Amino acid sequence: MSDKKSFSPSRRTFLTASAAAGGALASGQLVHAQAATPDPLITEAQPWRQYLGAGVDAAPYGMPSPYESEVVRRTVPWLTADLVSSINFTPLHELDGIITPNGICFERHHGGAAEIDPADHRLMINGLVDTPMVFTMEDIMRFPRENHVYFLECAANTGMEWAGAQLNGCQFTHGMIHNVEYTGVPLRLLLEEAGVQTNGRWLLAEGADAAGMTRSIPMEKALDDCLVAFKMNGEALRVEQGYPLRLVVPGWEGNMWIKWLRRLEVGDEPWHHREETSKYTDLLEDGDARRFTWVMDAKSVITNPSPQAPILHGPGPTVLTGIAWSGRGTIPRVDVTLDGGRNWHQARMSGPSLDKSMHRFYYEFDWDGSPLLLQSRAIDSTGYVQPTKEQLREFRGENSIYHNNGIQTWFVNENGEAENVEVG
Amino acid sequence: MSDKKSFSPSRRTFLTASAAAGGALASGQLVHAQAATPDPLITEAQPWRQYLGAGVDAAPYGMPSPYESEVVRRTVPWLTADLVSSINFTPLHELDGIITPNGICFERHHGGAAEIDPADHRLMINGLVDTPMVFTMEDIMRFPRENHVYFLECAANTGMEWAGAQLNGCQFTHGMIHNVEYTGVPLRLLLEEAGVQTNGRWLLAEGADAAGMTRSIPMEKALDDCLVAFKMNGEALRVEQGYPLRLVVPGWEGNMWIKWLRRLEVGDEPWHHREETSKYTDLLEDGDARRFTWVMDAKSVITNPSPQAPILHGPGPTVLTGIAWSGRGTIPRVDVTLDGGRNWHQARMSGPSLDKSMHRFYYEFDWDGSPLLLQSRAIDSTGYVQPTKEQLREFRGENSIYHNNGIQTWFVNENGEAENVEVG
Repeated sequence: MSDKKSFSPSRRTFLTASAAAGGALASGQLVHAQAATPDPLITEAQPWRQYLGAGVDAAPYGMPSPYESEVVRRTVPWLTADLVSSINFTPLHELDGIITPNGICFERHHGGAAEIDPADHRLMINGLVDTPMVFTMEDIMRFPRENHVYFLECAANTGMEWAGAQLNGCQFTHGMIHNVEYTGVPLRLLLEEAGVQTNGRWLLAEGADAAGMTRSIPMEKALDDCLVAFKMNGEALRVEQGYPLRLVVPGWEGNMWIKWLRRLEVGDEPWHHREETSKYTDLLEDGDARRFTWVMDAKSVITNPSPQAPILHGPGPTVLTGIAWSGRGTIPRVDVTLDGGRNWHQARMSGPSLDKSMHRFYYEFDWDGSPLLLQSRAIDSTGYVQPTKEQLREFRGENSIYHNNGIQTWFVNENGEAENVEVG
Repeated sequence: MSDKKSFSPSRRTFLTASAAAGGALASGQLVHAQAATPDPLITEAQPWRQYLGAGVDAAPYGMPSPYESEVVRRTVPWLTADLVSSINFTPLHELDGIITPNGICFERHHGGAAEIDPADHRLMINGLVDTPMVFTMEDIMRFPRENHVYFLECAANTGMEWAGAQLNGCQFTHGMIHNVEYTGVPLRLLLEEAGVQTNGRWLLAEGADAAGMTRSIPMEKALDDCLVAFKMNGEALRVEQGYPLRLVVPGWEGNMWIKWLRRLEVGDEPWHHREETSKYTDLLEDGDARRFTWVMDAKSVITNPSPQAPILHGPGPTVLTGIAWSGRGTIPRVDVTLDGGRNWHQARMSGPSLDKSMHRFYYEFDWDGSPLLLQSRAIDSTGYVQPTKEQLREFRGENSIYHNNGIQTWFVNENGEAENVEVG
């Protein structure tokens, strides 16, 4: 909720009054806002009770309330030279649950968002196959489909943190992620249709955008759980997410989820293209580069409170919430600390726990008004524990851009304002 | 996919060519669209490969592709006297998976959609409680939250079918339903805060809209799984869905999910207001009326093919899909028939199977081009089997408007065009 902006000073007074009467978490009473003092917002009729509202023909495709106008994707202009080869970020601090609405899923383009008429879109399969093929969208719609909720995280998400706390807001530190329900055809079915030859061990996926994005994908993954997807959250893919067709590579870095998918070439070795050599490799201290680091390891972040979502209500009952995910399975457990790691508390998970999907956690506490050092630590279904940034740097140095899944810290001051900091 | 409108005549020719080469479902080959004939859409550069697309600052809150402009909510003007007390319908035939995007969730208002500043919204709890209370939105945000994907179905959904096949399209026969992830505070926690007195056995929920919608809810349900919700699919509720606060009454008729929730009164008996006497009761043949028929029983519908989504590709491999749901649990099984009930086939379920949530089913078959009588039949986790319309009418007559969960039939002719019909 973007209450921050909408509370006028008089509202703040009311809120303070109600908060002052509460705070006794231990006794089970969270918040008292007694009706002893007549509140004109209860006793008098507001305009929306006196006059008819909008009819059902007002918005064939609806939009959020005007009071939610700040809940949007945001860019960081200085991050990239041009906005057609750039990123915007999901407003994680304004969201709850696990589903990301399609309109605010982060974008990453390399040549702008291609706008394609689905009638003119084709998917070709060539290379080491028995029968090279070209599919129309309607052809693809005749294969059996599956539905899965998956997170998509850019490998560069949280990349600015390798060298220390940089960006002030979890929208910017962690917002290169979204989590939607994808509908698509298992890639395996299309490859079986073309007939992959015995030496076909790699796949090159190519986009139809001006960047001609390409990535090499091992055949084992392609035949396992990849989808050729045409819907997200029930409706057609959004243009900026690859309409009409994108590759879904569950649990692996977002760069491989080729958008505007036009071609799949089967080969016997990887192609070593730009996006898997110059980019999306991890330069270590000794000059070696880690390559083909595809899986997104377990990670979490506290979305509230956070720099863009301070505690506005003062001391007393406070809801801490955040998200966690792993490219290797589910997240059975998240721990949180209020004091920079001295004491850890098991968070409460709520919502569907699905394979390679975002998970939502909560920790309710009674804030005494003193400064906090907030951290969360995810543990995935393989037993892997999200590392500290220090632990990551020990093995990977500070040259990396990608695959920073270290524990994030927010410092909260006595006024409830939060800041991105490093500890340790 | 709204391919129907976007295929130009030349595209149709191409499609026919590719379909003609396929069709051998039994051999494992679904669709052949061989690249033997050079296709200019593969061999030549399209505009979207030659020119940069839109940048990441183009749409802070994004919208669907212009090619999806027909995927919208639709009204049926003659159904109601005025559009501020009316319905629009979810375009089910254009969707897949289980999540309904927020922008196209059906609406039902009784006095128009109230537009409320969340800073000015209050929720009062009064009546048989120890401490009458008034909550601001921020107060509510300090209670523990939960996340659940639930369907919301209007009791009048499919109501026009009591007297026989009426509306031609599953958007109109079954589109008074949506399925989203809700985030909210368990109603139980707010009631515990106020302290429900021992004789408090009913709850009156009241909306802040001009209609002042009210419904009586038994305390047992209120304390069980109801939520006071403020988010849907991750973001704030939409205005037309009760922003900033609505009641969620899982598995029960949509009319009880009071929008713009402003008051909860605790009492010792139901209030017998308009919406539970004159409306939302089921008049039987003998003049008696069934009352308090809250639960939405198991139901399903085939969304594709259907009257608004004909088979365009001619004979051969065909994907049949639809949705199923039950207010009493999950849907472990759906059966479908192609011949009006002579032969039933178990459908394939795909996607999350969640309590009181929509489920997605598929049945792939090789259409020989002869006419079809399509039906689906849901079986829920209690073992309840979706009845035929005939079975329903036997007990409930034809006076009813509400709670028609009978089996729906689409007739598909040799051209693939579908029509709403009655069988038996």
